[in-house]
Amino acid sequence: MNFSKEFTSAILIIGNEILSGRTVDKNTSFIAKWLGELGINVEEVRVIPDKEKIIINTLNELRKKYQYIFTTGGIGPTHDDITAESVAKAFGKKYKYNSEAYSILKKYYANSDFNEGRKKMAKMPEGAKLIYNKQGSAPAFYLENVFVLPGIPSYVEIMLPPLKDLFVKGKKIISISCEARVRESSIAADLSNIQDKYPDIDIGSYPFSNQNGFGTVLVIRATNEDVALKCKKDIENMLDKFIEKPF
Amino acid sequence: MNFSKEFTSAILIIGNEILSGRTVDKNTSFIAKWLGELGINVEEVRVIPDKEKIIINTLNELRKKYQYIFTTGGIGPTHDDITAESVAKAFGKKYKYNSEAYSILKKYYANSDFNEGRKKMAKMPEGAKLIYNKQGSAPAFYLENVFVLPGIPSYVEIMLPPLKDLFVKGKKIISISCEARVRESSIAADLSNIQDKYPDIDIGSYPFSNQNGFGTVLVIRATNEDVALKCKKDIENMLDKFIEKPF
Repeated sequence: MNFSKEFTSAILIIGNEILSGRTVDKNTSFIAKWLGELGINVEEVRVIPDKEKIIINTLNELRKKYQYIFTTGGIGPTHDDITAESVAKAFGKKYKYNSEAYSILKKYYANSDFNEGRKKMAKMPEGAKLIYNKQGSAPAFYLENVFVLPGIPSYVEIMLPPLKDLFVKGKKIISISCEARVRESSIAADLSNIQDKYPDIDIGSYPFSNQNGFGTVLVIRATNEDVALKCKKDIENMLDKFIEKPF
Repeated sequence: MNFSKEFTSAILIIGNEILSGRTVDKNTSFIAKWLGELGINVEEVRVIPDKEKIIINTLNELRKKYQYIFTTGGIGPTHDDITAESVAKAFGKKYKYNSEAYSILKKYYANSDFNEGRKKMAKMPEGAKLIYNKQGSAPAFYLENVFVLPGIPSYVEIMLPPLKDLFVKGKKIISISCEARVRESSIAADLSNIQDKYPDIDIGSYPFSNQNGFGTVLVIRATNEDVALKCKKDIENMLDKFIEKPF
Protein backbone atom coordinates (compact mmCIF):
# COMPACT_ATOMS: atom_id res chain seq x y z
CA MET A 1 0.00 0.00 0.00
CA ASN A 2 1.19 3.50 -0.72
CA PHE A 3 -0.19 6.46 1.19
CA SER A 4 0.05 10.14 0.34
CA LYS A 5 1.89 12.18 2.97
CA GLU A 6 -1.49 13.27 4.33
CA PHE A 7 -2.00 9.88 5.94
CA THR A 8 1.50 9.09 7.12
CA SER A 9 3.07 9.15 10.54
CA ALA A 10 6.16 8.15 12.49
CA ILE A 11 6.62 7.14 16.10
CA LEU A 12 9.62 8.37 18.08
CA ILE A 13 10.28 6.36 21.24
CA ILE A 14 12.54 8.35 23.56
CA GLY A 15 14.15 6.43 26.38
CA ASN A 16 17.37 4.75 27.46
CA GLU A 17 15.33 1.96 29.08
CA ILE A 18 14.15 0.72 25.68
CA LEU A 19 17.63 0.93 24.11
CA SER A 20 19.20 -0.95 27.01
CA GLY A 21 16.67 -3.75 26.61
CA ARG A 22 15.32 -3.30 30.13
CA THR A 23 11.85 -2.41 28.90
CA VAL A 24 9.97 -3.83 25.92
CA ASP A 25 8.24 -1.00 24.05
CA LYS A 26 4.49 -1.55 24.00
CA ASN A 27 3.48 1.94 22.90
CA THR A 28 4.32 1.40 19.23
CA SER A 29 1.83 -1.43 18.94
CA PHE A 30 -0.99 0.52 20.60
CA ILE A 31 -0.39 3.76 18.69
CA ALA A 32 0.00 1.98 15.33
CA LYS A 33 -3.21 -0.01 15.72
CA TRP A 34 -5.10 3.11 16.78
CA LEU A 35 -3.76 5.04 13.79
CA GLY A 36 -4.68 2.14 11.48
CA GLU A 37 -8.31 2.62 12.53
CA LEU A 38 -8.02 6.26 11.39
CA GLY A 39 -6.45 5.24 8.08
CA ILE A 40 -3.09 6.71 9.01
CA ASN A 41 -0.09 4.52 8.28
CA VAL A 42 3.00 4.34 10.47
CA GLU A 43 5.92 4.57 8.06
CA GLU A 44 8.75 4.25 10.55
CA VAL A 45 9.59 4.00 14.23
CA ARG A 46 12.78 5.21 15.86
CA VAL A 47 14.04 4.54 19.34
CA ILE A 48 16.57 7.07 20.60
CA PRO A 49 18.23 7.91 23.93
CA ASP A 50 17.41 10.80 26.28
CA LYS A 51 19.99 13.06 24.63
CA GLU A 52 19.01 16.57 23.64
CA LYS A 53 20.85 16.88 20.33
CA ILE A 54 19.62 13.51 19.13
CA ILE A 55 16.02 14.30 20.07
CA ILE A 56 16.16 17.67 18.29
CA ASN A 57 17.77 16.34 15.11
CA THR A 58 15.58 13.26 14.83
CA LEU A 59 12.37 15.16 15.48
CA ASN A 60 13.24 17.83 12.92
CA GLU A 61 14.01 15.17 10.34
CA LEU A 62 10.79 13.24 10.95
CA ARG A 63 8.35 16.13 11.22
CA LYS A 64 9.25 17.32 7.73
CA LYS A 65 8.90 13.88 6.29
CA TYR A 66 5.57 12.72 7.74
CA GLN A 67 2.21 14.27 8.46
CA TYR A 68 2.05 13.30 12.14
CA ILE A 69 4.72 12.46 14.69
CA PHE A 70 4.07 10.76 18.01
CA THR A 71 6.75 10.77 20.68
CA THR A 72 6.64 8.78 23.90
CA GLY A 73 8.74 9.16 27.02
CA GLY A 74 10.77 11.78 28.80
CA ILE A 75 8.07 14.17 30.06
CA GLY A 76 8.18 13.30 33.76
CA PRO A 77 9.66 15.22 36.69
CA THR A 78 13.20 13.82 36.86
CA HIS A 79 16.58 14.91 35.47
CA ASP A 80 16.40 12.36 32.63
CA ASP A 81 13.10 13.80 31.36
CA ILE A 82 14.26 16.21 28.69
CA THR A 83 11.76 15.66 25.90
CA ALA A 84 9.60 18.77 26.43
CA GLU A 85 12.60 21.12 26.47
CA SER A 86 14.13 19.37 23.45
CA VAL A 87 10.87 19.68 21.50
CA ALA A 88 10.81 23.41 22.31
CA LYS A 89 14.35 23.73 20.95
CA ALA A 90 13.49 21.70 17.83
CA PHE A 91 10.68 24.18 17.06
CA GLY A 92 12.70 27.25 18.13
CA LYS A 93 10.06 28.01 20.77
CA LYS A 94 10.45 29.19 24.36
CA TYR A 95 10.30 26.48 27.03
CA LYS A 96 8.08 27.89 29.78
CA TYR A 97 5.24 27.19 32.17
CA ASN A 98 1.93 26.48 30.51
CA SER A 99 -0.53 28.25 32.80
CA GLU A 100 -3.31 25.69 32.41
CA ALA A 101 -0.96 22.77 33.06
CA TYR A 102 0.45 24.64 36.05
CA SER A 103 -3.05 25.06 37.51
CA ILE A 104 -3.92 21.41 37.00
CA LEU A 105 -0.78 20.28 38.79
CA LYS A 106 -1.11 22.86 41.58
CA LYS A 107 -4.65 21.67 42.26
CA TYR A 108 -3.55 18.03 42.29
CA TYR A 109 -0.70 18.41 44.77
CA ALA A 110 -1.00 19.92 48.23
CA ASN A 111 0.86 23.24 48.35
CA SER A 112 3.79 21.89 50.29
CA ASP A 113 4.15 18.97 47.86
CA PHE A 114 4.19 21.10 44.72
CA ASN A 115 7.96 20.87 44.36
CA GLU A 116 10.28 21.79 41.51
CA GLY A 117 10.02 18.37 39.82
CA ARG A 118 6.24 18.60 39.74
CA LYS A 119 6.33 22.19 38.51
CA LYS A 120 8.67 21.06 35.73
CA MET A 121 5.88 18.91 34.31
CA ALA A 122 3.99 22.15 33.52
CA LYS A 123 6.85 23.44 31.36
CA MET A 124 6.31 23.08 27.63
CA PRO A 125 7.10 24.78 24.36
CA GLU A 126 5.24 28.08 24.00
CA GLY A 127 2.02 27.55 22.05
CA ALA A 128 1.67 23.88 23.00
CA LYS A 129 -1.86 22.55 23.45
CA LEU A 130 -2.64 20.18 26.28
CA ILE A 131 -3.40 16.47 26.06
CA TYR A 132 -5.29 15.61 29.25
CA ASN A 133 -4.67 12.63 31.49
CA LYS A 134 -7.78 11.44 33.31
CA GLN A 135 -5.83 8.91 35.32
CA GLY A 136 -2.80 10.92 36.44
CA SER A 137 -2.23 14.58 36.99
CA ALA A 138 0.29 15.75 34.44
CA PRO A 139 -1.01 16.62 31.00
CA ALA A 140 1.00 15.91 27.86
CA PHE A 141 0.91 18.26 24.86
CA TYR A 142 1.01 18.70 21.11
CA LEU A 143 2.57 21.36 18.98
CA GLU A 144 1.71 21.61 15.29
CA ASN A 145 1.99 18.03 14.01
CA VAL A 146 4.00 16.62 16.93
CA PHE A 147 2.16 14.76 19.71
CA VAL A 148 4.27 14.40 22.84
CA LEU A 149 3.05 11.54 25.02
CA PRO A 150 4.31 9.96 28.24
CA GLY A 151 6.19 6.66 28.27
CA ILE A 152 3.79 4.78 30.54
CA PRO A 153 1.60 2.61 28.27
CA SER A 154 -1.53 2.84 30.46
CA TYR A 155 -1.38 6.64 30.17
CA VAL A 156 -0.90 6.56 26.39
CA GLU A 157 -3.91 4.28 26.10
CA ILE A 158 -6.24 6.72 27.83
CA MET A 159 -4.75 9.97 26.52
CA LEU A 160 -4.63 9.24 22.80
CA PRO A 161 -8.20 8.15 21.89
CA PRO A 162 -9.92 11.48 22.81
CA LEU A 163 -7.70 13.23 20.23
CA LYS A 164 -9.08 11.40 17.22
CA ASP A 165 -10.90 14.38 15.72
CA LEU A 166 -7.63 16.29 15.33
CA PHE A 167 -6.46 14.06 12.50
CA VAL A 168 -7.10 14.06 8.77
CA LYS A 169 -8.44 10.56 8.40
CA GLY A 170 -7.63 8.20 5.57
CA LYS A 171 -9.54 5.11 4.59
CA LYS A 172 -9.56 2.74 7.53
CA ILE A 173 -6.90 0.09 7.11
CA ILE A 174 -8.61 -3.30 7.24
CA SER A 175 -6.58 -6.19 8.56
CA ILE A 176 -7.76 -9.77 7.97
CA SER A 177 -5.84 -12.79 9.24
CA CYS A 178 -5.95 -16.38 7.98
CA GLU A 179 -4.17 -18.98 10.05
CA ALA A 180 -3.28 -22.42 8.76
CA ARG A 181 -1.24 -25.41 9.83
CA VAL A 182 1.14 -25.15 6.92
CA ARG A 183 4.77 -24.16 6.72
CA GLU A 184 5.15 -20.82 5.00
CA SER A 185 7.86 -22.33 2.82
CA SER A 186 5.28 -24.74 1.34
CA ILE A 187 2.94 -21.99 0.16
CA ALA A 188 5.48 -19.33 -0.84
CA ALA A 189 5.06 -19.65 -4.62
CA ASP A 190 1.24 -19.77 -4.56
CA LEU A 191 1.11 -16.86 -2.14
CA SER A 192 3.38 -14.80 -4.34
CA ASN A 193 0.95 -15.31 -7.25
CA ILE A 194 -1.92 -14.07 -5.09
CA GLN A 195 0.10 -11.02 -4.02
CA ASP A 196 0.80 -10.24 -7.70
CA LYS A 197 -2.95 -10.41 -8.41
CA TYR A 198 -3.69 -7.78 -5.70
CA PRO A 199 -1.10 -4.99 -6.01
CA ASP A 200 -3.05 -2.62 -3.72
CA ILE A 201 -3.05 -5.09 -0.84
CA ASP A 202 -0.19 -5.97 1.48
CA ILE A 203 -0.06 -9.68 2.26
CA GLY A 204 2.24 -10.56 5.12
CA SER A 205 3.29 -14.10 5.98
CA TYR A 206 4.25 -14.86 9.59
CA PRO A 207 5.36 -18.31 10.72
CA PHE A 208 4.71 -19.28 14.32
CA SER A 209 5.27 -22.21 16.61
CA ASN A 210 3.73 -23.15 19.94
CA GLN A 211 2.96 -26.25 22.03
CA ASN A 212 0.37 -27.42 19.53
CA GLY A 213 2.72 -27.39 16.58
CA PHE A 214 3.46 -24.69 14.10
CA GLY A 215 1.89 -22.90 11.21
CA THR A 216 1.57 -19.63 9.38
CA VAL A 217 -0.57 -16.55 9.78
CA LEU A 218 -1.31 -14.66 6.60
CA VAL A 219 -2.30 -11.06 7.15
CA ILE A 220 -4.13 -9.06 4.51
CA ARG A 221 -3.94 -5.27 4.92
CA ALA A 222 -6.07 -3.19 2.60
CA THR A 223 -8.28 -0.11 2.47
CA ASN A 224 -10.92 -1.63 0.16
CA GLU A 225 -12.95 -4.24 2.01
CA ASP A 226 -14.47 -5.93 -1.07
CA VAL A 227 -11.06 -6.48 -2.62
CA ALA A 228 -9.70 -7.66 0.74
CA LEU A 229 -12.46 -10.27 1.02
CA LYS A 230 -11.80 -11.53 -2.53
CA CYS A 231 -8.14 -11.86 -1.67
CA LYS A 232 -9.04 -13.74 1.51
CA LYS A 233 -11.15 -16.21 -0.53
CA ASP A 234 -8.21 -16.81 -2.89
CA ILE A 235 -5.91 -17.41 0.06
CA GLU A 236 -8.34 -19.86 1.65
CA ASN A 237 -8.71 -21.80 -1.59
CA MET A 238 -4.95 -21.93 -1.92
CA LEU A 239 -4.50 -23.09 1.68
CA ASP A 240 -7.01 -25.93 1.11
CA LYS A 241 -4.47 -27.51 -1.27
CA PHE A 242 -1.91 -27.72 1.51
CA ILE A 243 -3.53 -28.30 4.86
CA GLU A 244 -4.50 -31.89 4.09
CA LYS A 245 -0.81 -32.84 4.25
CA PRO A 246 0.11 -33.58 7.84
CA PHE A 247 3.44 -32.34 9.16
CA MET B 1 27.69 7.28 29.19
CA ASN B 2 29.55 7.99 25.99
CA PHE B 3 31.03 5.17 23.95
CA SER B 4 33.59 5.36 21.18
CA LYS B 5 32.31 4.10 17.84
CA GLU B 6 34.09 0.81 18.52
CA PHE B 7 31.43 -0.19 21.03
CA THR B 8 28.32 1.14 19.35
CA SER B 9 25.54 -0.60 17.49
CA ALA B 10 22.11 -0.10 16.00
CA ILE B 11 19.19 -2.46 15.53
CA LEU B 12 17.12 -2.40 12.37
CA ILE B 13 13.76 -4.13 12.69
CA ILE B 14 12.38 -4.90 9.24
CA GLY B 15 8.72 -5.82 9.07
CA ASN B 16 5.29 -4.43 8.28
CA GLU B 17 3.84 -6.47 11.16
CA ILE B 18 5.67 -4.32 13.72
CA LEU B 19 4.72 -1.03 12.02
CA SER B 20 1.06 -2.03 11.81
CA GLY B 21 1.01 -2.79 15.52
CA ARG B 22 0.06 -6.43 14.99
CA THR B 23 3.26 -7.69 16.59
CA VAL B 24 5.15 -6.27 19.56
CA ASP B 25 8.89 -6.33 18.83
CA LYS B 26 10.70 -8.46 21.38
CA ASN B 27 13.99 -8.79 19.53
CA THR B 28 15.27 -5.33 20.48
CA SER B 29 15.13 -6.14 24.17
CA PHE B 30 16.96 -9.46 23.79
CA ILE B 31 19.65 -8.15 21.44
CA ALA B 32 20.25 -5.00 23.52
CA LYS B 33 20.64 -6.91 26.79
CA TRP B 34 22.99 -9.39 25.13
CA LEU B 35 25.07 -6.56 23.68
CA GLY B 36 25.15 -4.84 27.07
CA GLU B 37 26.89 -7.93 28.46
CA LEU B 38 29.56 -7.47 25.77
CA GLY B 39 29.93 -3.78 26.57
CA ILE B 40 28.39 -2.72 23.29
CA ASN B 41 25.80 0.03 23.49
CA VAL B 42 22.71 0.21 21.30
CA GLU B 43 22.56 3.83 20.12
CA GLU B 44 19.36 3.62 18.10
CA VAL B 45 16.67 1.31 16.82
CA ARG B 46 14.68 1.76 13.65
CA VAL B 47 11.61 -0.08 12.52
CA ILE B 48 11.01 0.05 8.77
CA PRO B 49 8.70 -1.67 6.28
CA ASP B 50 9.57 -4.48 3.86
CA LYS B 51 10.41 -2.02 1.07
CA GLU B 52 13.64 -2.41 -0.83
CA LYS B 53 14.66 1.23 -1.23
CA ILE B 54 14.01 1.99 2.42
CA ILE B 55 15.99 -1.05 3.59
CA ILE B 56 18.94 -0.14 1.35
CA ASN B 57 19.03 3.53 2.34
CA THR B 58 18.56 2.94 6.06
CA LEU B 59 21.15 0.18 6.20
CA ASN B 60 23.72 2.25 4.32
CA GLU B 61 23.13 5.18 6.68
CA LEU B 62 23.43 3.08 9.83
CA ARG B 63 26.40 0.92 8.89
CA LYS B 64 28.57 3.98 8.37
CA LYS B 65 27.51 5.46 11.67
CA TYR B 66 27.87 2.51 14.06
CA GLN B 67 30.28 -0.34 14.54
CA TYR B 68 27.72 -3.15 14.39
CA ILE B 69 24.26 -3.38 12.84
CA PHE B 70 21.74 -6.09 13.64
CA THR B 71 18.73 -6.56 11.39
CA THR B 72 15.77 -8.79 12.13
CA GLY B 73 13.06 -10.03 9.81
CA GLY B 74 12.49 -10.63 6.13
CA ILE B 75 14.74 -13.63 5.45
CA GLY B 76 12.06 -16.29 5.09
CA PRO B 77 10.73 -18.00 1.96
CA THR B 78 7.79 -15.78 0.99
CA HIS B 79 7.33 -12.82 -1.39
CA ASP B 80 7.49 -10.31 1.47
CA ASP B 81 10.94 -11.54 2.56
CA ILE B 82 13.24 -9.15 0.74
CA THR B 83 15.90 -8.40 3.35
CA ALA B 84 18.70 -10.62 1.99
CA GLU B 85 18.40 -9.25 -1.54
CA SER B 86 18.19 -5.67 -0.22
CA VAL B 87 21.31 -6.17 1.90
CA ALA B 88 23.14 -7.45 -1.19
CA LYS B 89 22.11 -4.31 -3.08
CA ALA B 90 23.13 -2.05 -0.17
CA PHE B 91 26.64 -3.56 -0.31
CA GLY B 92 26.75 -3.68 -4.12
CA LYS B 93 27.20 -7.46 -3.94
CA LYS B 94 25.67 -10.21 -6.06
CA TYR B 95 22.62 -11.94 -4.58
CA LYS B 96 23.17 -15.65 -5.19
CA TYR B 97 23.01 -19.12 -3.70
CA ASN B 98 25.37 -19.71 -0.80
CA SER B 99 26.53 -23.26 -1.43
CA GLU B 100 26.77 -24.23 2.25
CA ALA B 101 23.33 -22.81 3.03
CA TYR B 102 21.97 -24.61 -0.04
CA SER B 103 23.39 -27.93 1.20
CA ILE B 104 21.96 -27.45 4.69
CA LEU B 105 18.50 -26.76 3.31
CA LYS B 106 18.68 -29.56 0.72
CA LYS B 107 19.56 -32.05 3.45
CA TYR B 108 16.73 -30.80 5.67
CA TYR B 109 13.96 -31.05 3.10
CA ALA B 110 13.11 -34.19 1.16
CA ASN B 111 13.98 -33.70 -2.51
CA SER B 112 10.42 -33.25 -3.63
CA ASP B 113 9.82 -30.66 -0.90
CA PHE B 114 12.85 -28.51 -1.72
CA ASN B 115 10.77 -25.96 -3.59
CA GLU B 116 11.62 -22.46 -4.84
CA GLY B 117 10.66 -20.75 -1.56
CA ARG B 118 12.98 -23.00 0.42
CA LYS B 119 15.79 -22.58 -2.11
CA LYS B 120 15.35 -18.82 -1.81
CA MET B 121 16.43 -19.04 1.84
CA ALA B 122 19.90 -20.10 0.60
CA LYS B 123 20.28 -16.90 -1.44
CA MET B 124 22.49 -14.26 0.17
CA PRO B 125 24.91 -11.51 -0.74
CA GLU B 126 28.16 -12.90 -2.18
CA GLY B 127 30.75 -13.23 0.59
CA ALA B 128 28.20 -13.58 3.40
CA LYS B 129 29.13 -15.85 6.29
CA LEU B 130 26.53 -18.14 7.82
CA ILE B 131 24.86 -17.81 11.21
CA TYR B 132 23.61 -21.29 12.07
CA ASN B 133 20.21 -22.18 13.45
CA LYS B 134 20.21 -25.28 15.64
CA GLN B 135 16.44 -25.25 15.97
CA GLY B 136 15.33 -24.62 12.40
CA SER B 137 16.88 -25.31 9.07
CA ALA B 138 17.62 -22.00 7.43
CA PRO B 139 20.83 -20.24 8.41
CA ALA B 140 21.03 -16.46 8.68
CA PHE B 141 24.19 -14.56 7.72
CA TYR B 142 26.51 -11.65 8.33
CA LEU B 143 28.44 -9.48 5.95
CA GLU B 144 31.15 -7.17 7.26
CA ASN B 145 29.54 -5.42 10.24
CA VAL B 146 25.91 -6.25 9.41
CA PHE B 147 24.27 -9.22 11.13
CA VAL B 148 21.11 -10.32 9.36
CA LEU B 149 18.85 -12.29 11.70
CA PRO B 150 15.36 -13.77 11.37
CA GLY B 151 12.29 -12.13 12.86
CA ILE B 152 11.23 -15.03 15.08
CA PRO B 153 12.43 -14.23 18.62
CA SER B 154 13.11 -17.85 19.61
CA TYR B 155 15.46 -18.17 16.64
CA VAL B 156 17.28 -14.91 17.45
CA GLU B 157 17.77 -16.12 21.01
CA ILE B 158 19.57 -19.28 19.95
CA MET B 159 21.43 -17.91 16.92
CA LEU B 160 23.03 -14.80 18.44
CA PRO B 161 24.91 -16.07 21.55
CA PRO B 162 27.35 -18.37 19.67
CA LEU B 163 28.60 -15.32 17.75
CA LYS B 164 29.97 -13.49 20.76
CA ASP B 165 33.64 -13.92 19.85
CA LEU B 166 33.18 -11.96 16.64
CA PHE B 167 32.78 -8.68 18.50
CA VAL B 168 35.24 -6.14 19.87
CA LYS B 169 34.09 -6.09 23.46
CA GLY B 170 33.82 -3.02 25.62
CA LYS B 171 33.57 -2.89 29.36
CA LYS B 172 30.49 -4.81 30.41
CA ILE B 173 27.64 -2.43 31.11
CA ILE B 174 26.47 -3.00 34.68
CA SER B 175 22.85 -2.34 35.44
CA ILE B 176 21.69 -1.99 39.05
CA SER B 177 18.07 -1.31 40.00
CA CYS B 178 16.69 0.22 43.20
CA GLU B 179 12.94 0.08 43.67
CA ALA B 180 11.08 2.21 46.20
CA ARG B 181 7.54 3.10 47.10
CA VAL B 182 7.99 6.77 46.32
CA ARG B 183 6.63 8.94 43.58
CA GLU B 184 9.40 9.97 41.22
CA SER B 185 8.19 13.53 41.45
CA SER B 186 9.06 13.53 45.17
CA ILE B 187 12.69 12.60 44.66
CA ALA B 188 13.41 14.47 41.43
CA ALA B 189 15.61 17.21 42.93
CA ASP B 190 17.66 14.88 45.14
CA LEU B 191 18.11 12.43 42.32
CA SER B 192 19.31 15.18 40.01
CA ASN B 193 22.02 16.07 42.55
CA ILE B 194 23.18 12.46 42.61
CA GLN B 195 23.26 12.33 38.82
CA ASP B 196 25.41 15.49 38.82
CA LYS B 197 27.83 13.81 41.24
CA TYR B 198 28.31 10.82 38.88
CA PRO B 199 28.69 12.16 35.33
CA ASP B 200 29.93 8.80 33.97
CA ILE B 201 26.83 6.96 35.12
CA ASP B 202 23.37 7.00 33.58
CA ILE B 203 20.62 7.09 36.18
CA GLY B 204 17.17 6.40 34.80
CA SER B 205 13.97 6.95 36.74
CA TYR B 206 10.93 4.84 35.82
CA PRO B 207 7.60 5.20 37.60
CA PHE B 208 5.35 2.16 37.76
CA SER B 209 1.96 1.22 39.11
CA ASN B 210 0.40 -2.16 39.81
CA GLN B 211 -2.20 -3.76 42.12
CA ASN B 212 -0.02 -3.16 45.17
CA GLY B 213 0.31 0.55 44.62
CA PHE B 214 2.92 2.51 42.77
CA GLY B 215 6.52 3.51 43.02
CA THR B 216 9.68 4.18 41.12
CA VAL B 217 12.52 2.05 39.82
CA LEU B 218 15.88 3.79 39.60
CA VAL B 219 18.30 2.16 37.20
CA ILE B 220 22.03 2.79 37.39
CA ARG B 221 23.97 1.95 34.21
CA ALA B 222 27.74 2.12 34.40
CA THR B 223 30.90 0.40 33.27
CA ASN B 224 32.80 0.86 36.57
CA GLU B 225 31.33 -1.38 39.25
CA ASP B 226 32.90 0.39 42.26
CA VAL B 227 31.52 3.74 41.20
CA ALA B 228 28.14 2.14 40.43
CA LEU B 229 27.97 0.69 43.96
CA LYS B 230 28.85 4.07 45.52
CA CYS B 231 26.09 5.66 43.49
CA LYS B 232 23.67 2.93 44.60
CA LYS B 233 24.53 3.68 48.27
CA ASP B 234 23.85 7.40 47.72
CA ILE B 235 20.51 6.57 46.10
CA GLU B 236 19.51 4.28 48.96
CA ASN B 237 20.39 6.92 51.56
CA MET B 238 18.37 9.45 49.64
CA LEU B 239 15.39 7.10 49.33
CA ASP B 240 15.41 6.51 53.10
CA LYS B 241 14.38 10.15 53.55
CA PHE B 242 11.24 9.56 51.54
CA ILE B 243 9.90 6.07 52.01
CA GLU B 244 8.77 6.70 55.60
CA LYS B 245 6.03 8.96 54.21
CA PRO B 246 3.01 6.85 53.32
CA PHE B 247 1.16 7.66 50.09
